[in-house]
Amino acid sequence: MAETGKDFSFHVGARDGAARLGAISTPRGTIRTPAFMPCGTAATVKAMYPGEVRALGVDVVLANTYHLMLAPGAERIARLGGLHKFMGWPHPILTDSGGFQVMSLAKLRKLDERGVVFQSHIDGSRHELTPERAMEIQGLLGSDIQMQLDECVRLPCPFEDVERAMRLSLRWGERSRAAFGTQPGRAIFGIVQGGAERSLRTTSARELASMEFDGYAIGGLAVGEPQAVMLEMIEAVEPLLPTSKPRYLMGVGTPDDLLESLSRGVDMFDCVMPTRAGRHGLVFTRHGRMNLRNARWADDPRPIDEASSAPAARDFSRAYWRHLVKSGEILAMMALTAVNLAYYQDLMAGARLAIENRRLPQYIEEVKSGWMRGESAGA
Amino acid sequence: MAETGKDFSFHVGARDGAARLGAISTPRGTIRTPAFMPCGTAATVKAMYPGEVRALGVDVVLANTYHLMLAPGAERIARLGGLHKFMGWPHPILTDSGGFQVMSLAKLRKLDERGVVFQSHIDGSRHELTPERAMEIQGLLGSDIQMQLDECVRLPCPFEDVERAMRLSLRWGERSRAAFGTQPGRAIFGIVQGGAERSLRTTSARELASMEFDGYAIGGLAVGEPQAVMLEMIEAVEPLLPTSKPRYLMGVGTPDDLLESLSRGVDMFDCVMPTRAGRHGLVFTRHGRMNLRNARWADDPRPIDEASSAPAARDFSRAYWRHLVKSGEILAMMALTAVNLAYYQDLMAGARLAIENRRLPQYIEEVKSGWMRGESAGA
Repeated sequence: MAETGKDFSFHVGARDGAARLGAISTPRGTIRTPAFMPCGTAATVKAMYPGEVRALGVDVVLANTYHLMLAPGAERIARLGGLHKFMGWPHPILTDSGGFQVMSLAKLRKLDERGVVFQSHIDGSRHELTPERAMEIQGLLGSDIQMQLDECVRLPCPFEDVERAMRLSLRWGERSRAAFGTQPGRAIFGIVQGGAERSLRTTSARELASMEFDGYAIGGLAVGEPQAVMLEMIEAVEPLLPTSKPRYLMGVGTPDDLLESLSRGVDMFDCVMPTRAGRHGLVFTRHGRMNLRNARWADDPRPIDEASSAPAARDFSRAYWRHLVKSGEILAMMALTAVNLAYYQDLMAGARLAIENRRLPQYIEEVKSGWMRGESAGA
Repeated sequence: MAETGKDFSFHVGARDGAARLGAISTPRGTIRTPAFMPCGTAATVKAMYPGEVRALGVDVVLANTYHLMLAPGAERIARLGGLHKFMGWPHPILTDSGGFQVMSLAKLRKLDERGVVFQSHIDGSRHELTPERAMEIQGLLGSDIQMQLDECVRLPCPFEDVERAMRLSLRWGERSRAAFGTQPGRAIFGIVQGGAERSLRTTSARELASMEFDGYAIGGLAVGEPQAVMLEMIEAVEPLLPTSKPRYLMGVGTPDDLLESLSRGVDMFDCVMPTRAGRHGLVFTRHGRMNLRNARWADDPRPIDEASSAPAARDFSRAYWRHLVKSGEILAMMALTAVNLAYYQDLMAGARLAIENRRLPQYIEEVKSGWMRGESAGA
């Protein structure tokens, strides 16, 4: 384990417009920001060994409280030495609070002031998640960055319901903050809610800022609304969040979403997109998206992208991956996941360099030009 | 590509009883025998990168003519530079003739003297496989060791049917041999058939030996008959096969099958068992088999086998693999495939060393004692 300090801290090293180049220091290592965090949902970044994930330049992975509390169980992971040891990832881990998956995956939910009672989507067993239990679970896992419990509504949603959920999330934020207490080297983030309502978002951000979290997430976006709405909400809350704390846009997104959001001051991202798309044969490259299931690649001897940092994108033909994707071969899922995570990491590394050199707008234009030219320009 | 010679040759370096320590030289590298060949069915050893396979000590992989002729097609692979380049495996490749899978997988077969017409199990398309076409396909793939087309019957089977299939396989062997012709650096193996009938097996072996193949396979075993019957058939044909040529027992088998067969003079094996079992959570270790789906491992912090040459067996707990197997995670399929292939390779390496030191019986006894003691002795 890399011991780089005893405390959790965030340092902004450079700015370009609203964008920030930063570093989150934790006892388990430094997270360079803007950062993309691969999803290690059930204690594994799907189809990747942890060593492979690390080799792509990943500083932090996300794990899901909802999945882990159901299987294999938080108390079990604690007995086995904690999540880092369990999954062979000694570097920083961020955990969500479980709230989002309870809403999207669990059956028969009953939500009230106290918390939410739900049935497992796996075996129907009954579980409860309160702010206090969400923090207890994340503590048992040994998470470096823990999230408050919140309620996330689906959009579109009536104003009154969005407001009720936002205010409940604030009260749960206070309870989560209190339950977390003080844990040297570990952090708790609050979550801004408020749907697509600017007034609710700003209220949420102001209230949370007063609670002195170690970082601030923007939740409840990328749930179906247009990108412009998402960006408007980011712009609404960004001036209200403490500049000395990292900002994390939850569950986002496409490479374009990432560039547009980090240029508006977001420091951290997570999304299943690169891993899930990879398992289904869709890759992100300098030249845009490629669906390797497509017949156009059947006889193409060219690599996916000879400049990729993933060997699979350089050392095999598009024809090979097309064959494996069509055949449902596991190697395709492994390799294309790696290709996508490599692209996401390289995109963030490029953005960090561009912020440092104060040329982020030019970088974003160059990247988008590459996508527009398309893959044919790649060979 | 390792260029170790221009010709295909086989050299026996040591003997212990009927067992042989040998080396097959090919232009693409040397195959140390006894050798276990992982199955790279559809141009991939399932759930493994070729570099990982190589790192386990694998000298040669098997690929399946039936699967590759259906997808992506032999002519396509030839246009793309051959199978070695296509799948990123520059080392030796052995291909089967497609006959076995036609019988086990294809629909609506029509078999006659000329060959077999069948429908693809994937899309119902119509294909023909004759001895001449089987050799043509293997040539297009660029296979280093090619197999004659044969007919393999399911056991039990009436004597007359076994005899008819054996005699057809001999005639197909002659035609395959003629179609192969002379290809410097490449080899063609004949296949002994005859079911569980000693008299048919010996006839088949004698006739094939006169055709001067580069090696001799024993086919049509491990199709449900008791191990004792399989070993009896090996013992029946072993004295009739040229001592200067490698012997390959097709589709076998368990670690026990391998030890019993190599001690009776078999030099090469292939089987889906280690890869298929790994994908289903079953591992082979020094301490016998472990089903990682079993609840007994749920809280077990011990590694699968701290002496394994597969990192996955050393660096993670049984509890972790049990969780991933139960959750259907791809990483479990990747890791447990590697654990099994590592065990099979190490078993063969141990046998080779034991033959060299003329202590093969002791080695086999030690290995079997480990299996009998069980996994509990392992920690």
